[in-house]
Amino acid sequence: MARLSRRIEGIHTSPIRRVAALLDEARERVDIISFGGGAPSLPPPQGFLHEFSRLLEAEALRTVAYTGTRGIPALREAISADLKKYGRVDFDPASEIIVTTGATESISSSLMCLIDPGDEVIITDPTYLGYKEMIELAQGRAKTISVDVENGYQPSDEQLKKAVSKKTKAMVLLSPDNPTGRIINESFVRTLVDLAKDFDFWIISDEAYKHIVYEGEHVWVSRLRGAKEHTITVCSFSKEAGIPGLRLGYTLAPKRVIESIEKMQQYSTLAPNSIGQFALVRFLNQNMKEQYVRESVMKYIKRRDFMGEMLRSHLPLARTITPAGAYYYFVDIRQYLTKLHQTEEEFSQNLLRSTSVAVIPGRFFGENGRGHIRMTFVTEPERRIRLGIERMEQFLGRSS
Amino acid sequence: MARLSRRIEGIHTSPIRRVAALLDEARERVDIISFGGGAPSLPPPQGFLHEFSRLLEAEALRTVAYTGTRGIPALREAISADLKKYGRVDFDPASEIIVTTGATESISSSLMCLIDPGDEVIITDPTYLGYKEMIELAQGRAKTISVDVENGYQPSDEQLKKAVSKKTKAMVLLSPDNPTGRIINESFVRTLVDLAKDFDFWIISDEAYKHIVYEGEHVWVSRLRGAKEHTITVCSFSKEAGIPGLRLGYTLAPKRVIESIEKMQQYSTLAPNSIGQFALVRFLNQNMKEQYVRESVMKYIKRRDFMGEMLRSHLPLARTITPAGAYYYFVDIRQYLTKLHQTEEEFSQNLLRSTSVAVIPGRFFGENGRGHIRMTFVTEPERRIRLGIERMEQFLGRSS
Repeated sequence: MARLSRRIEGIHTSPIRRVAALLDEARERVDIISFGGGAPSLPPPQGFLHEFSRLLEAEALRTVAYTGTRGIPALREAISADLKKYGRVDFDPASEIIVTTGATESISSSLMCLIDPGDEVIITDPTYLGYKEMIELAQGRAKTISVDVENGYQPSDEQLKKAVSKKTKAMVLLSPDNPTGRIINESFVRTLVDLAKDFDFWIISDEAYKHIVYEGEHVWVSRLRGAKEHTITVCSFSKEAGIPGLRLGYTLAPKRVIESIEKMQQYSTLAPNSIGQFALVRFLNQNMKEQYVRESVMKYIKRRDFMGEMLRSHLPLARTITPAGAYYYFVDIRQYLTKLHQTEEEFSQNLLRSTSVAVIPGRFFGENGRGHIRMTFVTEPERRIRLGIERMEQFLGRSS
Repeated sequence: MARLSRRIEGIHTSPIRRVAALLDEARERVDIISFGGGAPSLPPPQGFLHEFSRLLEAEALRTVAYTGTRGIPALREAISADLKKYGRVDFDPASEIIVTTGATESISSSLMCLIDPGDEVIITDPTYLGYKEMIELAQGRAKTISVDVENGYQPSDEQLKKAVSKKTKAMVLLSPDNPTGRIINESFVRTLVDLAKDFDFWIISDEAYKHIVYEGEHVWVSRLRGAKEHTITVCSFSKEAGIPGLRLGYTLAPKRVIESIEKMQQYSTLAPNSIGQFALVRFLNQNMKEQYVRESVMKYIKRRDFMGEMLRSHLPLARTITPAGAYYYFVDIRQYLTKLHQTEEEFSQNLLRSTSVAVIPGRFFGENGRGHIRMTFVTEPERRIRLGIERMEQFLGRSS
């Protein structure tokens, strides 16, 4: 068979997607308690769903026609108004907003537009596992800042200053963070903005979880003084509208960057999904979002607190922080693993096999994730969270 | 502002998308007769549209949830059965099919998986205008084979043999072709397959228009002896299901290539649109496709013949072929342009401005497209095709 590119040989299959495939398989055989996923558990509002049917009935041809690469003007206007309302940030719908095929495309096309071979991009370790591969696909090099449970997964100003150099092209910052649930300290972001100005690099602020906040406040990076023209903001409708499968998100950036991203996306996906865009106009303009977000956060915070309690009482040697946002506990289980003589990856596999409880090995999120597991608290109801953690406790007792 | 990548500086905005934006603007002011578009004009079948509503009502959470990166197994199985039925080709749904965010993603991720810096990719000139930019985004070099109206836009074996070298990594072949409507000679494809084996390169067979055939037969490249393991086939639901805005297509390839494309797409779009995938299962399995394709082709062939007649009687100095497939006449109007002292791009702009008739300048499809225009015949009904071409005739008479 003819050769493939070196580019693709160096890239790894996303372990989360691999686990998802395993889970799909396992689910057909047994009832899995899943602490593994990353999707909302509240279905989208009825009125929003009804809008899809209405559109297809009222104007089928237009609803399924190509839209512009930037997305339909009405949606960009609705996004602009939404950003003003929730974040008091001002983005021009005509020139500073582009709709994307999910936050994944937002990040990957942003990186493709910024990075030349050898450019460095700073990320925390651990953080979202796709960044590193995306940076490498764009021929950049990921430079990591270690964060750990002791400092609440906050990177420090000193670490950042040490990481920045003339080679720095960007920092990708995710807040609220996946997998740690950490909301970034605003003071860190101020230092970041100052350095971005001094060294002339970009901040890619991934705000996919901006509305999934339980404590403190989301940091709207672009709102900080001097930040806007150094910042590319990545947003997603997956979490705030409950439609991860529809693959819709958006990117906010200075005019010239949006123009470049538009060029890139013309040749990668051509345009975002049409029907989802039309329906989202109603979702945003009729203010269905406010209720959906409020109900989601109310439901999730209960599950978060419950899982926290269960972890403390059943797995007392585990260490974690109470996540201020997002969907996950990132749990340091090294004290258990040492006794078991297992890596967290072996542990996760054995746990799934023996007890049908799914968790994600921490190594997937970076070197510093070793000895940790990611546990989603939004998917399962309290009863099954209890059951799952009891099974983990028994498994650990049995094995040690 | 901090610098962007050299990669993106070298890429041009798709002129079709630029024209589409101009048209959107113009359409708000006047009634445009559009020979410019590239979308089906028959809405999707009612039963197919109804399936979207049914899915959202019956199982909302699953319908909008993430699917696997390869797409849902049920859709891949339906695609596999569909290919057997229509093309007598055999692709394993588990390992040789991946669902994509439209044919655009199919092509771009295939190229990213194949091309190393400096690799050459052969395309015809003219052909679909995105290929060249996509090849360059993947750091390859496009090598063109000239085709023209005299030889019915067919490339010759001799041209191909001259173009192939050790640097050849792939040929991208579109049949039926956009913009020329040419269906490739099977004998050419046999030569191509032999060369692909000898020189160990790939054939990317873009079969987006495989069902939009008026004369002769579609060439199922992968069916030819020895072709399958050298061929990546790109397919689209835009034309055969009437849903361009939903951005769904698929790629057929050997197992190892599909694995690579899956890796790539994990980091570019994560997964294809969920609801469209679920609805397509019904579209394919309930055999709505057969009727939709038949009705489309019946409607389009009438419009094709009518536009052909109009061109011959009103623009007798224009030269073209009767398209055997796809949506377009590619018309050589050099005899008119010489008198006008205009390029076809100036002509197209002036025509739109003066008469509200939209056509696409041929230069966009390659160097050999100079002096040509692309005219879509599927969009407008006969009455308006007549009106548009009469206006063109008057405009040419007035100006010369």
